[in-house]
Amino acid sequence: MARIVMKFGGTSVADLDRIRNVAQRVKNEVDAGNEVAVVVSAMSGVTNQLVGYCEDASPMYDAREYDVVVSSGEQVTSGLLSIVLQSMGVAARSWQGWQIPIRTDSVHAKARIEDIGTEELDKRFKSGEVVVVPGFQGVGSDNRVTTLGRGGSDTSAVALAAATKADRCDIYTDVDGVYTTDPRIVAKARKLDKITYEEMLELASLGAKVLQTRSVEMAMKHDVRLQVLTSFEEKPGTLVCGEDEIVEQELVSGIAYSRDEAKITLIGVADRPGVSAGLFGPLADTSINVDMIVQNVSEDGQKTDVTFTVPRGDLQRAIQLLEEKQEEVGYERLVSDSDVVKISVVGVGMRTHAGVAATMFKALAEKGINIQVITTSEIKVSVLIAEEYLELAIRALHSAYGLDADEE
Amino acid sequence: MARIVMKFGGTSVADLDRIRNVAQRVKNEVDAGNEVAVVVSAMSGVTNQLVGYCEDASPMYDAREYDVVVSSGEQVTSGLLSIVLQSMGVAARSWQGWQIPIRTDSVHAKARIEDIGTEELDKRFKSGEVVVVPGFQGVGSDNRVTTLGRGGSDTSAVALAAATKADRCDIYTDVDGVYTTDPRIVAKARKLDKITYEEMLELASLGAKVLQTRSVEMAMKHDVRLQVLTSFEEKPGTLVCGEDEIVEQELVSGIAYSRDEAKITLIGVADRPGVSAGLFGPLADTSINVDMIVQNVSEDGQKTDVTFTVPRGDLQRAIQLLEEKQEEVGYERLVSDSDVVKISVVGVGMRTHAGVAATMFKALAEKGINIQVITTSEIKVSVLIAEEYLELAIRALHSAYGLDADEE
Repeated sequence: MARIVMKFGGTSVADLDRIRNVAQRVKNEVDAGNEVAVVVSAMSGVTNQLVGYCEDASPMYDAREYDVVVSSGEQVTSGLLSIVLQSMGVAARSWQGWQIPIRTDSVHAKARIEDIGTEELDKRFKSGEVVVVPGFQGVGSDNRVTTLGRGGSDTSAVALAAATKADRCDIYTDVDGVYTTDPRIVAKARKLDKITYEEMLELASLGAKVLQTRSVEMAMKHDVRLQVLTSFEEKPGTLVCGEDEIVEQELVSGIAYSRDEAKITLIGVADRPGVSAGLFGPLADTSINVDMIVQNVSEDGQKTDVTFTVPRGDLQRAIQLLEEKQEEVGYERLVSDSDVVKISVVGVGMRTHAGVAATMFKALAEKGINIQVITTSEIKVSVLIAEEYLELAIRALHSAYGLDADEE
Repeated sequence: MARIVMKFGGTSVADLDRIRNVAQRVKNEVDAGNEVAVVVSAMSGVTNQLVGYCEDASPMYDAREYDVVVSSGEQVTSGLLSIVLQSMGVAARSWQGWQIPIRTDSVHAKARIEDIGTEELDKRFKSGEVVVVPGFQGVGSDNRVTTLGRGGSDTSAVALAAATKADRCDIYTDVDGVYTTDPRIVAKARKLDKITYEEMLELASLGAKVLQTRSVEMAMKHDVRLQVLTSFEEKPGTLVCGEDEIVEQELVSGIAYSRDEAKITLIGVADRPGVSAGLFGPLADTSINVDMIVQNVSEDGQKTDVTFTVPRGDLQRAIQLLEEKQEEVGYERLVSDSDVVKISVVGVGMRTHAGVAATMFKALAEKGINIQVITTSEIKVSVLIAEEYLELAIRALHSAYGLDADEE
């Protein structure tokens, strides 16, 4: 007997037929003798409709009232799934965030879970009743409904799994697992059986949007074994877990990419203390997220070039800001380029094996692809290249690291 | 300064434009220096959609989960109205049934309000904040959301007005008040300025569906002055109040009718004690609501005829049941007729003035309309007539009691 939290996203509960399909999945786990809690999203499209109502009501809508409106979507699904489960002979009951309670801070519309009461849940588990919980919502210290921000249902599920010490948290989505790279680009991409939290975090934050980043961080912190799988087919997905559970660790687990990149180079920056602060401080103040940063050592110790990337949508704002501060920052010329992409190879194996970066550079060089910027972390090497080489580069790297699926 | 509860039905909050219109109404009362609580229904169509989901989920849906699903409609409106009010510079905040709390019994899907906490509400009134409350919902003794049954938002509003000792409870609907009779039948029907609770109850239960019966009963019990008015025009409606507030009481206030009638006559019923119980007990047991009952005194003390009415939709079930029990009940023959209607004249003036019934019988006789059954109460005379005479009878009575509006 295991205790399992199952989470179903909006497309998995899009209508009553799909909710019945979800209920069958839940019933299977119950019939197998497991204790089950289910976390559900709003039926697909509903959250967007509700957010649209709020925006129509006022572009400057109050976050407390937004939470009242938008949390209703998950509430509806939780009631409907409970009804369907009961009709299939499965004891089930819905519990709203304020009933459990799922206590959050009072930062409405993007609250963080602080604590989950487990008394009611334990009682239900013991009586063999399925606990159905609307994702994305909680109750703030002001005793008002809060929501966790878009995609927050993954976080709800992991938090519930952590609080109830569940053996596993299954996240059902519309993809059947985590792949070595985007299968739309590389036909030979392989589904991973297992991946570490750290790798998943790098892949998620790099644009492989399978799981919400915050939910993976929480799973790592609380040692919650996460499984990503699809509700549309009966097959195992990808387990996100600690390194100790992965016996044979690949050197590189996956290759991620991001098109949302733009490059800015400041030429002839005065090379003196405080320049970086004067440059990046104003960008941070206006919430422009600077990612890759490279500063060349100047030969004469007087002038240097600084290159960095920002999200494409922020490029114009960043340029305007930097032009306004040209004198203050002290640079000669600004050059920008938005036809760039970031490609990253990710793998915890890098910690103990040298040569990962060298393999990357060699593979790209062989295809004649110029690397504009390089950054590295403990388990990741990222490069910035011209956008036109995106697919070519990913395919070359996927082969170079031996990730291609065997021909069948 | 007055304290006012304003209640807006589904058509008044059907979309964001109408919610803005409602917000303006609320703002007008606030600007006039009043303390305001607003009770809102779900946007029109939403409750039907949510009920449809529950029925699709399972025809035998659990009432607790139905309440979770269906209560979300009012929740959404309460948040949206609060946002719009704030955008107009009116301090406003929504409060769900479980937050106030509006305590009910735990008869899910048709709960009754037991008690309303006023601490939070009083605090808000004092600070000049508009309190926005979703109608139709409360929280049961099981700490789960309950709903009050269809039309329950009127009851929510009256209960809130009673609990907060409001000076008035304004019910905004899609009609502009209570009329002397159905204006679709009588062009000269007049809108009443005032009507007593008792009269309103008779008119409501007789098919003039302006206010939910339960809400009027509650208003009468707690002396809540109710105003029925439209949200689409700026004009006074009809005040439902105690008799003492109505200086010049009309003899007859209105004429109601009901098409949902069918007549059953049992001929040759054995005239002995217990026959009525044997006859009406089984009907009551199967939830068939028997209304008008007439039993003629038998001349010989042996046999009598019994005539009564049931809702049209229950006629076949009633006949089947009575035929099964023919021997037990002991009657010779059953005759039924579903082409009948009930017409009632209502007025508290009847208590002190004779001749109301006589006027009715005379007016109908003059038009050659045969009266099949007569029943009377303290403030009402009802007759059953053939359906084909419905409009003719109502117009004749409307004139006979001097209710016709003056020509303008």
